[in-house]
Parts: sequence; C-alpha cells; structure tokens
Amino acid sequence: MKIINTACVAHTPYLNLMTSSYEDDKGNVKAWEWVERVGQQNAVVIAALHKGLLVVIKEFRVPLQDYEWGLPAGLIDHGEDPEVTVRRELHEETGLTVNKFLRPISPLIYNTAGMTNEGVHMAFVEASGAPSRDLLGESEDITTHLMSQDEVKALMQQNVKFGAKAYLVFERFATHGDI
Amino acid sequence: MKIINTACVAHTPYLNLMTSSYEDDKGNVKAWEWVERVGQQNAVVIAALHKGLLVVIKEFRVPLQDYEWGLPAGLIDHGEDPEVTVRRELHEETGLTVNKFLRPISPLIYNTAGMTNEGVHMAFVEASGAPSRDLLGESEDITTHLMSQDEVKALMQQNVKFGAKAYLVFERFATHGDI
Repeated sequence: MKIINTACVAHTPYLNLMTSSYEDDKGNVKAWEWVERVGQQNAVVIAALHKGLLVVIKEFRVPLQDYEWGLPAGLIDHGEDPEVTVRRELHEETGLTVNKFLRPISPLIYNTAGMTNEGVHMAFVEASGAPSRDLLGESEDITTHLMSQDEVKALMQQNVKFGAKAYLVFERFATHGDI
Repeated sequence: MKIINTACVAHTPYLNLMTSSYEDDKGNVKAWEWVERVGQQNAVVIAALHKGLLVVIKEFRVPLQDYEWGLPAGLIDHGEDPEVTVRRELHEETGLTVNKFLRPISPLIYNTAGMTNEGVHMAFVEASGAPSRDLLGESEDITTHLMSQDEVKALMQQNVKFGAKAYLVFERFATHGDI
C-alpha cells in the first residue's frame, strides 16, 4: 500500500479529522479517514503499585457518557520528557508520588491505529503517599482506589466500563499478582 | 460532571467528529471533542496461541504511515456475535482457525476513552492451521508471524511500532509464557 496524499477535512481546537488517499495492492485509489490530536500530542498511562496494591482510578469520560475504571493517564505537554509526565500526572490525578520506575518506560505504542495516530507510553512504577483529589483539574472527575489482587478480580466481574490497556493490566495483576 | 448536549460537527463515510457540552464541577460550561465510528461499530482483538507460539501480525496502518506489529483484529459486522467475528477475522487475516476460546471473551473495553467511544472485545484463543494471505481484503497489507517467547522478547527490543494492547499481551507472553 502506498499513501498518495493526506489532508485535514475538518478541525476543532483539539482534534483534526484527516483523510489519506492511498493505492491498494491492486492499484485502486481509496480513502482512509482518521483522527489526530492537534499538535500530535501523545499520552502516558501509569500502572502503579502502592505497597503491593494496584492504583486504579474511576473517571468520568465524556465520549462514554459514563464512568470508566482505568489507570492514571495524561497528555504529554509539548517538549516534556514522558517520565516527567508520569510523575506529574500520577501526582495530579491521585495525589500519589512515584518512588521508582519498575522497568523502562515503553516506546510509543498505538491505541487504535486504524482510527488515530495517537500513542501512549506505558509506565510501570512503585508509588507512595495518600490518595488526594486536591490537584484535580476542573474537568477531571476522578476517584483513586488502592486495590488488592482479590479486589481487582472482583472489580473485573462487575458490569462497569473498563479502559482497554487497564483491563489487560488488571488481568495480569489478577492472575499473577504483578504488573 | 453533567453532559448538556451532544452534536456531530463533521462527518465522513466512516467517522463522525462530535462535540459535547458539559458542566464541570464548578458549574462552568465547556466543550469536549471526540470521535465515533459511523454506526458506533466496535471491534475484536485476538490473542491466539498456535502450538505454544503467539500469533503476531505486521500490518500497514494508514494513520501511522507505517507498519504496526500487533494482534489480529477486526470490526464487528452489524448484529454479529463477537465470537463469530473472532473466528471470521482470525481466518481472514491469518488463514488460521480458532480451535477453542481459552477463557470468556472480554466485555467491551475502551481503546482511548478521552478521544472516542470505540470499544473492543479481547479474545484469548487456541488456533491451528497454516498461515495464509489468500483471504486478505484489497486494503489489508498483513503478514502473519508465529513467534516463540524468545522471539517476542527480541521483537520488543526492535525500533518498530506496536499496537498498545498487543504490546501488553507481548509483555505478558515474554514474561510468563502465557496470554
């Protein structure tokens, strides 16, 4: 497949709706629609252990019109080192502090590459401190839950909405007790 | 947070660009932009073991303008049972056949709920057969790779692009040898 041309067909302050024309394997020219964040901003997602408990958040998500159970996360500011974003976002969203990175932060990995070029770095950290809502932004409706292996297993049986990456981390934690 | 109104501000054949007005915790009215697939179509993602090897695909992704290493996946046709989608998409993308589901298919989990309401069901299966490209669509540029634990570990060290859910499955397979 060969991309011929890419153009922005609609834009809003935060999202651009894009279309790329491409030539498929049989030489047909087709269009692929996709979305990018303005400034191609990416994010971090944080799997954190706090004295052996998993740091889980429940956050209101406008596109779902509902709460989602997931992991602390946030957009990387322009020029920011992703490890700095991890420390900042964990603190802002949960009040907790990163003690150490359990392994190197992941490369940029892609959330749903058929729809968007948005990527995230996954971080695996050890955290400390007491959960707090004091640093939440006005548009953030988040509660923090420190959960044992059994509590995560029980949460996964509930009829609630989960983030996809969080769900896979929850499964690993529920099965193996690690992240 | 309370959603006041949701409207479509731009649409193309496959994607709708949406905006929701909402009231934050301080009573301010703000806008959140997001994307939905036309018909709110969701997808399946398939972690498959083939005689103990992980079924990995390399697929060209227009939004990345590059190849992505990931897991077989595909959109759920309107009214289709997700388990049927899993059998169909694994066969179409890789030529392989689903022998059995290793555990129940996941609920709908959300790829990046700040940007879109698109969800996926994760399936964990045992597969058999020989990889084949005979059933690929004209817009699918995919190769199938059956990889050992050591091969997945080595792949994760390469400077290539990975799907996010795939990366977490790869990590678990590389660490524990299971999915």
